[in-house]
Amino acid sequence: MRKKAYHHGNLREALLQSARETLASDGIEALSLRAVAKRTGVSATALYSHFKDKQELLTRLAARGFDELAVEMEREQARAERGESAGGLVALARGYVAFATHNPALFQLMFGPAPGEVLAEPHLQQAGARAYGLLEADVAKRMESLGMPEQTPVATAGAWALVHGLSSLLNDGRISAKKLGLPDDAALTEQVCGLLDIG
Amino acid sequence: MRKKAYHHGNLREALLQSARETLASDGIEALSLRAVAKRTGVSATALYSHFKDKQELLTRLAARGFDELAVEMEREQARAERGESAGGLVALARGYVAFATHNPALFQLMFGPAPGEVLAEPHLQQAGARAYGLLEADVAKRMESLGMPEQTPVATAGAWALVHGLSSLLNDGRISAKKLGLPDDAALTEQVCGLLDIG
Repeated sequence: MRKKAYHHGNLREALLQSARETLASDGIEALSLRAVAKRTGVSATALYSHFKDKQELLTRLAARGFDELAVEMEREQARAERGESAGGLVALARGYVAFATHNPALFQLMFGPAPGEVLAEPHLQQAGARAYGLLEADVAKRMESLGMPEQTPVATAGAWALVHGLSSLLNDGRISAKKLGLPDDAALTEQVCGLLDIG
Repeated sequence: MRKKAYHHGNLREALLQSARETLASDGIEALSLRAVAKRTGVSATALYSHFKDKQELLTRLAARGFDELAVEMEREQARAERGESAGGLVALARGYVAFATHNPALFQLMFGPAPGEVLAEPHLQQAGARAYGLLEADVAKRMESLGMPEQTPVATAGAWALVHGLSSLLNDGRISAKKLGLPDDAALTEQVCGLLDIG
């Protein structure tokens, strides 16, 4: 194995990138520290100076995923604000579904059954809270205008359930935009949100 | 290992039951034909006379799960018809979420990423279609009364996404009825369906 020279910060990034590529190409079962070190071209020892075990690496990958999920939702929100697409919750839903369907293995890692200590990990909590906060802020506006702000938490859970279920069923091949006569997942998301009056 | 004597049909049932118990207690990764034969108290050879490989056993388990999902949805529908609870889609949603949260490992098996040939398996298609048909029939009534029957397929996908997402987020510990100040998952399901005007 050819060893490469990395600065400390760069190696960390390179390891996370390799882990993500391994996850996408081979699935979560195949993601071992050995495979990640090999793909990065460094020794397992070098890897251990950054991640104490596989769990820590997975947690960091998942946290990175939650950051990107929020970025994708914000991007769609910004597009809507520029008048390029439908706004409000529909925009956030489009961003959520786009992230999930473009990164199915990472999405599965982020939301798969996780032991309590992983869910409680501060970085993961913080990363997840950003995406959740985007949904919540939009639902809160809606609930306030309907005169029932106290319903915001349950309505946010409902909006989350809808976009999450849509993402999962698309990723697992149970629902298909094409089969429903729609051009793509974004169009399906908009139609579904429209019919359930979310937006 | 003590061998037990089974009639042919009984052994098949006993094997499926053992597989289900193994799935529930140890998870899908631990579910091997060897483990199932051992739990049933028969030889691997006896097992192979019923299931040619692990894939066939998993497919049968999943099909059984879809049957039970439909039964649970029908049970809630019947309760609603007797006036014991809220009816329509809310009842079906309650049944869906109850099945999913009471059988998390089986639910995961039924909806986890599956190769095309498994999704296309006739028994599985048929079993899944029954639960889907219950949702679709109810959504169709709603869409007809709204004067847009042509929207039934997309609206059914939306209703499915909502109950599926709620089930997944509950099973993965991301949403909790208690944390939302509600007594149980059924109450949460009803509230969410009410806020999204599904029912």
